[in-house]
Amino acid sequence: MAMLPFTRPRCLLPLFLGLFQGTLLLFFALFITYDEPSVQAEDTSLVANQVYGTFPFFQDIQVMLVVGLGLLLTFLPCYGLSALTHNFLLLNFSMQWAIVLQGLIHHFHHGQIHLDLHKLLISEFAAVTVLISVGAILGRTSPCQLLVMATCEVPIYLASEWVIVSCLGVLDVGGTITIHVFSCYFGLGVSKALFWAGQKPLHPKETPTPRSDLMSLVGMLILWVFWPSFVAVLCQPGDAQHRAILNTLLAMSASAITTVVASSLLEKDGKLSPGHLQNGSLAGGVAIGAVANMVVPPVAALALGSLSAVACVLGFRLLTPLLGRKLGLQDQCGIHNLHGLPGILGAAASAVAILAAPKDTSASHFSQLSPTGANASQVVGEQPGDSGVGRQALYQAAGLVVAIGVSLVSGLFTGATLRLPCLARPPERLCFDDSLYFKFQDQDESLGPDSTTEEGALALKERV
Amino acid sequence: MAMLPFTRPRCLLPLFLGLFQGTLLLFFALFITYDEPSVQAEDTSLVANQVYGTFPFFQDIQVMLVVGLGLLLTFLPCYGLSALTHNFLLLNFSMQWAIVLQGLIHHFHHGQIHLDLHKLLISEFAAVTVLISVGAILGRTSPCQLLVMATCEVPIYLASEWVIVSCLGVLDVGGTITIHVFSCYFGLGVSKALFWAGQKPLHPKETPTPRSDLMSLVGMLILWVFWPSFVAVLCQPGDAQHRAILNTLLAMSASAITTVVASSLLEKDGKLSPGHLQNGSLAGGVAIGAVANMVVPPVAALALGSLSAVACVLGFRLLTPLLGRKLGLQDQCGIHNLHGLPGILGAAASAVAILAAPKDTSASHFSQLSPTGANASQVVGEQPGDSGVGRQALYQAAGLVVAIGVSLVSGLFTGATLRLPCLARPPERLCFDDSLYFKFQDQDESLGPDSTTEEGALALKERV
Amino acid sequence: MAMLPFTRPRCLLPLFLGLFQGTLLLFFALFITYDEPSVQAEDTSLVANQVYGTFPFFQDIQVMLVVGLGLLLTFLPCYGLSALTHNFLLLNFSMQWAIVLQGLIHHFHHGQIHLDLHKLLISEFAAVTVLISVGAILGRTSPCQLLVMATCEVPIYLASEWVIVSCLGVLDVGGTITIHVFSCYFGLGVSKALFWAGQKPLHPKETPTPRSDLMSLVGMLILWVFWPSFVAVLCQPGDAQHRAILNTLLAMSASAITTVVASSLLEKDGKLSPGHLQNGSLAGGVAIGAVANMVVPPVAALALGSLSAVACVLGFRLLTPLLGRKLGLQDQCGIHNLHGLPGILGAAASAVAILAAPKDTSASHFSQLSPTGANASQVVGEQPGDSGVGRQALYQAAGLVVAIGVSLVSGLFTGATLRLPCLARPPERLCFDDSLYFKFQDQDESLGPDSTTEEGALALKERV
Repeated sequence: MAMLPFTRPRCLLPLFLGLFQGTLLLFFALFITYDEPSVQAEDTSLVANQVYGTFPFFQDIQVMLVVGLGLLLTFLPCYGLSALTHNFLLLNFSMQWAIVLQGLIHHFHHGQIHLDLHKLLISEFAAVTVLISVGAILGRTSPCQLLVMATCEVPIYLASEWVIVSCLGVLDVGGTITIHVFSCYFGLGVSKALFWAGQKPLHPKETPTPRSDLMSLVGMLILWVFWPSFVAVLCQPGDAQHRAILNTLLAMSASAITTVVASSLLEKDGKLSPGHLQNGSLAGGVAIGAVANMVVPPVAALALGSLSAVACVLGFRLLTPLLGRKLGLQDQCGIHNLHGLPGILGAAASAVAILAAPKDTSASHFSQLSPTGANASQVVGEQPGDSGVGRQALYQAAGLVVAIGVSLVSGLFTGATLRLPCLARPPERLCFDDSLYFKFQDQDESLGPDSTTEEGALALKERV
Repeated sequence: MAMLPFTRPRCLLPLFLGLFQGTLLLFFALFITYDEPSVQAEDTSLVANQVYGTFPFFQDIQVMLVVGLGLLLTFLPCYGLSALTHNFLLLNFSMQWAIVLQGLIHHFHHGQIHLDLHKLLISEFAAVTVLISVGAILGRTSPCQLLVMATCEVPIYLASEWVIVSCLGVLDVGGTITIHVFSCYFGLGVSKALFWAGQKPLHPKETPTPRSDLMSLVGMLILWVFWPSFVAVLCQPGDAQHRAILNTLLAMSASAITTVVASSLLEKDGKLSPGHLQNGSLAGGVAIGAVANMVVPPVAALALGSLSAVACVLGFRLLTPLLGRKLGLQDQCGIHNLHGLPGILGAAASAVAILAAPKDTSASHFSQLSPTGANASQVVGEQPGDSGVGRQALYQAAGLVVAIGVSLVSGLFTGATLRLPCLARPPERLCFDDSLYFKFQDQDESLGPDSTTEEGALALKERV
Repeated sequence: MAMLPFTRPRCLLPLFLGLFQGTLLLFFALFITYDEPSVQAEDTSLVANQVYGTFPFFQDIQVMLVVGLGLLLTFLPCYGLSALTHNFLLLNFSMQWAIVLQGLIHHFHHGQIHLDLHKLLISEFAAVTVLISVGAILGRTSPCQLLVMATCEVPIYLASEWVIVSCLGVLDVGGTITIHVFSCYFGLGVSKALFWAGQKPLHPKETPTPRSDLMSLVGMLILWVFWPSFVAVLCQPGDAQHRAILNTLLAMSASAITTVVASSLLEKDGKLSPGHLQNGSLAGGVAIGAVANMVVPPVAALALGSLSAVACVLGFRLLTPLLGRKLGLQDQCGIHNLHGLPGILGAAASAVAILAAPKDTSASHFSQLSPTGANASQVVGEQPGDSGVGRQALYQAAGLVVAIGVSLVSGLFTGATLRLPCLARPPERLCFDDSLYFKFQDQDESLGPDSTTEEGALALKERV
């Protein structure tokens, strides 16, 4: 039957995931352990305080990624279950994969690896890059393709993050460069290589309905509320963290209002576009990451938030159609507008902020806990001094260039890999449809045993 | 064309918001800064503890306002996107406006204004009043009208809050009088002046569907869960805060159950009304605010929660129709039942609690951090003593009178302002419809370039 | 009329709840008070730290139960409002009832009962058992039946929990045995006795739609995110709590991935079943409860999470249909697969973990705060020593047997009680329908005053 080459490779997904889980178990059994329980009461109280200091932030970030980002992706009206589920699956897979890789790379020479909440957090950050990149190819890819992409992206992210933060000493506490810019261009590279032939015509199921836009808007609001936790979690507790929270709040508040201004100026009749709102309101959070904990005046956070919202809305209105026409670039969720442009703005802002900092700036102004566990004082030690400020600004620019370059190239290669026929890319007519990945309960009652997948999908559509 | 006078003023929205953002940037650049970073390790640890003590509460309140209240307002089936978006826009606008005004009023004579999380929290409280007042006129107003209303309401709230808390020394840690009662009567005043002609006939899109009721119910549940954070955030850490949390939990639990009792007694066949549930379950949280941190027995919190739920359900069943018929008062969300009646009950309860307090009540029983930053000990210093208790009870009553009087009068004036034709009040037939404010993606494909807004709305309806 | 015997007893609900609220007020007035306010500054700071240490966990659990579990139950497409509301009502009712019972049982001989956040938390745990048990009979029962069930289940839970934790000294910090296993078999017992005649044929409204599956999936994700708080809240702050959080995160992450593997292997075409995802992803959280705070290697948490997800999916695929056919057992939400099988696995794992613990295990390895307030050191004091380890493993098994035995028997009796005709069990044709319990706004406009409930339901259906 004609469906065979398409339906057969489905068993790849459980095979791949099952093998991965098995290997993970083996790896954990051999190498991973917890910290020794503390013996003294003071240590216990220290651990308790660390848990109280990190765990609420960690939970906030989990809500953002699992619920907020998941719902944000449900704007495709017939693809909500798939978007939520693939997002959830990829988060877990990428976190586990990052734990394994981090264990192998950074800690292997110390023997046993001691797992703690902080290491899980770092792994979660690695997973975020995958979840962002998926936005470029959402709806036209199979879960197998997404898992292969995650398998490639996580190690490349860890390497690029090591180069940018530990080697170059780039300051980027909220992941503007290391996470947002990197994952955006990685995703675009994948999309370009995967859909080489150019932009697809509009698929009938690609258009959001008011109802799916509402769900997506709720997702945006959840992300908006908890974003300060994402930016501030790795800051030094105290002033730097307080500043990071305030700067993020200001930037996102400015983004929210500026998005309404920009969207209603650019749309006919002064109406708002739900897509602009769903993305523009978050642009400030993306951009502020690299400067959030620096000693900048509050007006800088507001201005950066406004600017990045304008960039995001203009990107949707002008750049995305242009890139589609000229380069044949497919960017389903507009990640270039939400993560690319604001990320570049944020990187530039961090360089400006460093150059504009007062002369007597002490090391603590740039303080951050290095996410990779490298000694923060080493990193910070390079900044002060006379020419140090100019050099640090250059490093920020260099970090941006590295992030874009590495991610684009590796994304293109990854995208080429995803063209392998065994990865079961869905045919165009079955894209954006949950019924390709989910079995709904009465499907097998209403259809005979020898009906094809496509018939099932069609039958479903009539029922919904 | 007939649509011209209606469609033209749409550019008012971006103009107004853009100008406001510009002014805000200027104001921040000139006057607002952060605290100096602390130099000593002890100070750093102090700041860290303050952040850990406030930030989780702050996040809870953000979730309440952005997600919970937003969803609660989506009970209008074709107006969900607008309700969520206008709520979100008004929150951000009012917070920024309150920061500016607070800076000008309270801190100007100290020169530079030091922004911190606590000041943002106070501004958020000012924004809450706007979000509540909107409930009276939801769906029949344009975003421009709502922004003008917010522009008027925030300074009046700040002034009335200063009179009530700082001058009269009213105890109201959870904002029962200063926030809920004030914003309710402000909203009703606006509604009366705006819809002077009297109650509108039922609009076909005004009736909730089971699906929109479900979304609204989820919003209520989110508000219900996080309400204790709203009440307790400004309490003195320790016993008072613990008590405020417990009292709020008890009051809201009693409200939830009593609402079911009252609703099923008042409705035909013993069925429940979704509207009663969406509001009555929260009534206890409104009422408990003024007594939450006082030393009252737990039974008082339960009783107050039950009573206010009964008042709320009776309000929906009897008072709202009566006010509609007699006074021509439009109250779309029933804010008088959720914020007005329980607020008055709560104010009365606070006076009773003060009168019934044991003689040896020390100052700490009434302790609260004054939201306006006034020295709490000054406020509290007036209470103890012999006649102090009676006087304090009188002050509570006086505070209630001030809140109702100021808000009603200023609301009427504000509502009269909103009648200005340039503010683009939507014509009755286009009310309660998202398509008036949102451009849905395939709208301009399916319609020619010269189709009017109204046609677009009709086309949309058929599609949904 | 034929409807009379069915519609009449509706006034039972407000009567029952009203009486309960009255009694509760009386009980609170007589017996319940708060702690005396602390006099010294150190005590105040201690209370503040306790609040900061418990309250965020408490809020997380509230979100889980009110929003997460509520949404999880909305998979029935026409029963969403009822599922959310009944869940919310039962949570409040059961908590209040548990406060009363706990006051009477445990603290009565101390005179006044001092209510605090910890006691509310314990009452919430009692309420959880009710919310889980309801899953077996969801949609075919009236609120009155559910309230009677809660009235019976809470005291039996408290007694069984006392026997298992305080008498047998079973270690079960996350409630695997005491909460999940107990409530599962209680619910199955109720279902068996209530629907004695055997499995019902498939009801047309019983089948989830993609949209209701989406809402339910969001509920699962909320539960998944906050589950670590549920497991860790009663742990000793410090290492044990840190370990409980990490173990839960690992177990749930493994569950999420293994569920996808198992579901796509068992379903036709390698598709996923939404029901498997909604339940299997949480199975690891159920199973890890009994071992979460023990010193086990991380791989054990992963393995347990994977195993329990496999058990859960296999349960849905094989065991539930089998139990339906052979025993005529109705299990609407599949609680046996989510709470029963993983709970038994978790209990077994706790016995194995105790046997496999290194010899020099000190008491602190098993440390937990006893939920009933019994002195933790007493409980723990029994374990160490030579034969103590074997005995403790036996106790774990005994606890499991007690939980299953007590709950099954008492569930059967409770289910028999629910057959009382006055409790208004809905007739089969009106099951799974919100319109039986909710009055939608335009119902009485469109129908004459003498239309029956059933007509209203039918009219509604056409409208939706």
